[in-house]
Amino acid sequence: MADLLPKALTNVIDELGRLPGVGARTAERYAYYLLRAKPNVADKLATSLEQLHTGVKSCPVTFALIDSSLDVSPLYSDKSRDKTLVAVVEEPLDIIAIERTGQYHGTYHVLGGAISPIDGVGPEQLHIPELLDRIKKDKVEEIIIATNASVEGESTSLFLQRHIQEKGIDIKMSRLARGIPVGVDLEYADQITLGHALEGRKIL
Amino acid sequence: MADLLPKALTNVIDELGRLPGVGARTAERYAYYLLRAKPNVADKLATSLEQLHTGVKSCPVTFALIDSSLDVSPLYSDKSRDKTLVAVVEEPLDIIAIERTGQYHGTYHVLGGAISPIDGVGPEQLHIPELLDRIKKDKVEEIIIATNASVEGESTSLFLQRHIQEKGIDIKMSRLARGIPVGVDLEYADQITLGHALEGRKIL
Repeated sequence: MADLLPKALTNVIDELGRLPGVGARTAERYAYYLLRAKPNVADKLATSLEQLHTGVKSCPVTFALIDSSLDVSPLYSDKSRDKTLVAVVEEPLDIIAIERTGQYHGTYHVLGGAISPIDGVGPEQLHIPELLDRIKKDKVEEIIIATNASVEGESTSLFLQRHIQEKGIDIKMSRLARGIPVGVDLEYADQITLGHALEGRKIL
Repeated sequence: MADLLPKALTNVIDELGRLPGVGARTAERYAYYLLRAKPNVADKLATSLEQLHTGVKSCPVTFALIDSSLDVSPLYSDKSRDKTLVAVVEEPLDIIAIERTGQYHGTYHVLGGAISPIDGVGPEQLHIPELLDRIKKDKVEEIIIATNASVEGESTSLFLQRHIQEKGIDIKMSRLARGIPVGVDLEYADQITLGHALEGRKIL
């Protein structure tokens, strides 16, 4: 079966098959598309991939992904951003989600994951000491814990709260509101979400 | 929003976003995965993509995809394959599907698509003259029309049958059987499929 397809094509299928959630059939479809498209489509993708790791680095302060040519994240160095307000997120891409709201003008801190004993991720692997340093250095007044609404995200949020209190750091801490997402019918909301929505109800 | 992510990362996201069925979120997920993985994962994918177009060509006889180093498809040059039996398929990957059954020992002919007036594909864009040449040259006794069970596949099948008859070529022509797929309950089968299954019923 191996030699049914040209080696150059199976190589592309194999390598695309490493992407998350991409099975053999999907990889075949992608590879065949690239083969039928003009060669510069595959070439441009190849070039962008070659420059991926050299062109990107982690911001040493916020751990956001930044251009290799930069010293710190533009979202941190920007003077119009409020450095005393820090949103703590799990992954760099979470920053994009919050920025898209257009409602946040503070800075960010990427933990680099969430506490997950099953995956062998403990608090010591997250960028927590660096967060404590920032709280002191930037005289942070509030941290918004914006970890995911998953078990791991909740554990991480809880750990952070306790850890900061234990360190005797007196700071306002908040957590993103939980409730019914916009456009979702009540009957389809799960009971935990609905419970949170009741608990966090707003007086009109 | 454009400068929220490093340029090298948005480049990869943009290029991956050209793949069929890949939206912005999926492209982000792929790119972020490649960034977190060891650099050689992205590098190997890049290398395979660079070699894709140079490493693959179309077989001049069967129009299957073959290694650039080969003259004709191994499925054609293989002496154990029956050249008097030709399965006519729309696309090169259809060959793989038939080969996976392990039940076919004839050769193949790739049309390079199906007749589709909406997409501007007429019979003159398909490898039909080459098929007629092969029928003569290889003294083909039967062609199995294995186009898709779509409107376009059916039109192409019908066109081929008439075209070959009009040319006065006397040859056995067959079409893949249509019926209930294995593992599917009768109540879920659509009426057209069920109609075909009734029509093509086998005497026990």
